[in-house]
Amino acid sequence: MKYTGVNNMVRFIKDHGIETVITELAQYLEHDFKRWEEFDKTPRYASHSKGGVIELMPTSDGQQFGFKYVNGHPGNYKKDLQTVIAFGVLSEVETGYPILFSEMTIATALRTAAMSALVAKYLAKEGSKTMAMIGNGCQAEFQAHAFRALLGIDELRLYDIDKSVSEKMVKNLETHGFNMSICNSSQEAVKRADIITTCTADKKNATILSDNMVGAGVHINAIGGDCPGKTELHADILSRAKVFVEYEEQSRIEGEIQQMPEDFEVTELWQIFSGEKQGRALESDITVFDSVGFAVEDFSILRYLNDKIDSTDYYEELDLFGTLDDSRNLFGLLT
Amino acid sequence: MKYTGVNNMVRFIKDHGIETVITELAQYLEHDFKRWEEFDKTPRYASHSKGGVIELMPTSDGQQFGFKYVNGHPGNYKKDLQTVIAFGVLSEVETGYPILFSEMTIATALRTAAMSALVAKYLAKEGSKTMAMIGNGCQAEFQAHAFRALLGIDELRLYDIDKSVSEKMVKNLETHGFNMSICNSSQEAVKRADIITTCTADKKNATILSDNMVGAGVHINAIGGDCPGKTELHADILSRAKVFVEYEEQSRIEGEIQQMPEDFEVTELWQIFSGEKQGRALESDITVFDSVGFAVEDFSILRYLNDKIDSTDYYEELDLFGTLDDSRNLFGLLT
Repeated sequence: MKYTGVNNMVRFIKDHGIETVITELAQYLEHDFKRWEEFDKTPRYASHSKGGVIELMPTSDGQQFGFKYVNGHPGNYKKDLQTVIAFGVLSEVETGYPILFSEMTIATALRTAAMSALVAKYLAKEGSKTMAMIGNGCQAEFQAHAFRALLGIDELRLYDIDKSVSEKMVKNLETHGFNMSICNSSQEAVKRADIITTCTADKKNATILSDNMVGAGVHINAIGGDCPGKTELHADILSRAKVFVEYEEQSRIEGEIQQMPEDFEVTELWQIFSGEKQGRALESDITVFDSVGFAVEDFSILRYLNDKIDSTDYYEELDLFGTLDDSRNLFGLLT
Repeated sequence: MKYTGVNNMVRFIKDHGIETVITELAQYLEHDFKRWEEFDKTPRYASHSKGGVIELMPTSDGQQFGFKYVNGHPGNYKKDLQTVIAFGVLSEVETGYPILFSEMTIATALRTAAMSALVAKYLAKEGSKTMAMIGNGCQAEFQAHAFRALLGIDELRLYDIDKSVSEKMVKNLETHGFNMSICNSSQEAVKRADIITTCTADKKNATILSDNMVGAGVHINAIGGDCPGKTELHADILSRAKVFVEYEEQSRIEGEIQQMPEDFEVTELWQIFSGEKQGRALESDITVFDSVGFAVEDFSILRYLNDKIDSTDYYEELDLFGTLDDSRNLFGLLT
């Protein structure tokens, strides 16, 4: 079985260029969402504890099976540990054999960013140039690269309640050719922004964006509201916007729309990608991608990685299973 | 994260001795089943396809979280592939960090055998000496070692519809000090046996044991009937036996008792281990362990392995996650 750890993942991204990787990955995401009905979709399994949650997110397209393990432990920050660790496995459905075991902490950041930008390509108004980014933590640089790769956006207005986090972002990207400015408030950041990305970490019903901050024509890429009790947008914004989700059943529980009545109208993204439904109708529409992250996205990046790294040195071989001379003689491995 | 592949697993078992490993493992199983109520028990997730099934089996005791990936593809046999491949992960609940990634193909055979023998220690009649083994495939040698390690049984009467499979078993164990005889029928095998282990592979409602083959006082270790549509015992045997299961909710769907009415009485094993309920009452009772395999058993072996291999060379370190100088700077790994 192939194994791609953090070192090989980093090397793969650096060698190929992060924007190339995100652009190629977005093609896999688009392809997979366009064949949405082929996927086996189940709600994720979640094991909750006082300190956080551990989740298993499986899916299959009938040819390959993939799942991701991911935790979310906000308090890890205080112990100098990552709040999110993830890994994933891709298997062949025909034999049940696992073929790729991969780190997914970086991969999840990549697929989330690629998905955000892909959705914005469909939903943001023509000629969008400026993006406000509220919350400049782990996901922010990936989002910035994705929006430049897919939409050409290079003007970024940053705000974080902890200014040092915005400064970290500027430092990480200062040689990458972005035009970045650090703002003193989210109100300042969203001014004249064509796109607003919210990506904050607090596990609570926050109001990162209030209704008066969102003007006509804006596309909102709402990343941070992604589990029960964790939202970023005021409900009034949702009321006057067109809201798009990955998978309605899951998003009603985990997304911004957990604030809305059950019959609040949303559109699933695959319907937009496949042309079945309309995205933005008017230049003045407010569109919202209520992103929570879905197993199909993890499947897409596992599939992408598996295709890309095959026959390269971006993986190691793990002896996860033996080769039996006789398939009925497992004990033979011990003799 | 620690990684134990097939090579290290084999080395660990050989160095320690398989019966020592099984004996120690049985202590972990017994300990965990005795604290049954501490475990988060969910039905396994199963992705079915034409060729087989891929399952994820998670559980947690509040301190650690474990899950197993396991497939079952009967047709793999024809492609010279294993019908079952498994791996498992153990994590710390407090941080969500995975700590052990292990092969579980061999480990599952070990834990299944250790569980069988542990249960027989509670349920088989005093002075049991002889075991009939019907179905001598991958699981058989592990069962033999487990029953000798825990019950001192070394007289084995073997039967398999494919005689070459019984011969494989004899060859594997010929220097291990067992007294084995290959029988020409299951009827012959079960004669004078104190314990009957059924462990056949066909995915159908088979009658490996019919009612007239099972005399008073016998303990039946029914391993093979473990998914919907796959059973080994005639219902009449169950009717006159005391039946013991791991987890009633799952066993009603997957076990031998799928043949019985919903109110058919069974006893969960943790109640026997903890002394809450009686196992065998009379020397003449027929007892049945309707084994299907439950996530807690995988948890026990992951916990056992993690304890045993710590600070040894029975594992490799995998770079599944990086070390961030600043936990909010994931992108820092790329710079």
